[in-house]
Amino acid sequence: MPKVIDHDQRRREIVEVAKKLIAEGGFEAATMRSIVAAAGFANGALKYYFASKDGIIAATFDSVLQETAERMSMLDPDASPMEALQGFVEAAMPLDAHRITSARVLLVLWEHSVTNPDLARQYRDLLTTWRAELTRRIAAAWGAGEPPEAPAVGALADEIISVAIGANVASLMHPVGELVDRYTAYVDGLMRRIAG
Amino acid sequence: MPKVIDHDQRRREIVEVAKKLIAEGGFEAATMRSIVAAAGFANGALKYYFASKDGIIAATFDSVLQETAERMSMLDPDASPMEALQGFVEAAMPLDAHRITSARVLLVLWEHSVTNPDLARQYRDLLTTWRAELTRRIAAAWGAGEPPEAPAVGALADEIISVAIGANVASLMHPVGELVDRYTAYVDGLMRRIAG
Repeated sequence: MPKVIDHDQRRREIVEVAKKLIAEGGFEAATMRSIVAAAGFANGALKYYFASKDGIIAATFDSVLQETAERMSMLDPDASPMEALQGFVEAAMPLDAHRITSARVLLVLWEHSVTNPDLARQYRDLLTTWRAELTRRIAAAWGAGEPPEAPAVGALADEIISVAIGANVASLMHPVGELVDRYTAYVDGLMRRIAG
Repeated sequence: MPKVIDHDQRRREIVEVAKKLIAEGGFEAATMRSIVAAAGFANGALKYYFASKDGIIAATFDSVLQETAERMSMLDPDASPMEALQGFVEAAMPLDAHRITSARVLLVLWEHSVTNPDLARQYRDLLTTWRAELTRRIAAAWGAGEPPEAPAVGALADEIISVAIGANVASLMHPVGELVDRYTAYVDGLMRRIAG
């Protein structure tokens, strides 16, 4: 029987390898050559899945964002509106070593977004979806009784998104885990503010 | 009379050129060759001021951080504690085109910090100084009467720093200026919270 290759699986493997190389050594470390070597592929085989490094980078960005989206959607169906909001906020915060390391990949991808409009759009779309979901959850949890489209709700969503991004950047400038307590304290304080 | 060269001035010029190249084309755009060409120097002359690209990058990081520090320290001596805090917060927020573009350079430098411990330390030191100054100003402005070292004051400082960093990143994913209203609303809301 001929060997059956699961092409989607292969693509995912390549993306995982790229992510690991980027997290360890930055963008320069993830060359077509180093990806091929780390994935144990023949050089030509990689080209079959991704024509260029840009293609791999876009797929890697997608994968990191997907991971966050999955964490955000993993929710206890019996959670109260307050718990549902807190879980959603915490999903994007650098509160464990895995997420702190993943942020390295995000940082590389943000940097590339500055000169790559497709990547910038990809992240902008995520920010829009993220903000819409946040406003829904804030409105549901908030004692103030404001609807999702109220300015105060939007302002809180913008604050949370900015804090999450900024916390990811700052965490990378410190020994892994050093700032976790601070960001946990932020989330606790935020929840108290919303509980009113 | 022999021509007198102001070496500090020359170094500053090189750094300005590097900043401009990075802001326009990302890290890859700022090569020793392109810096030489844009500065109108002979190749050997650049090496006299900076031995390597890493040296230029470190000086560029320093210059961008210095610019923020200067904006932060430009304060009306007659400002009330509330105004002094607001000015300080706004100094780090991407509220005009120049600051939004400068954030491109910061993003490049943050990315390089992940694999360059010296750059990471440089930024970590700035974060420490920034937080200390913020806690002093929050404590002075806040009706709650908490001292700078109170946990609630520290938590607010961490929030402000994270928001400023995150806002800089998110602004770069959008057309220049699109998010300015949101961040102005954040600062206004923050000042209301502190006024109690």
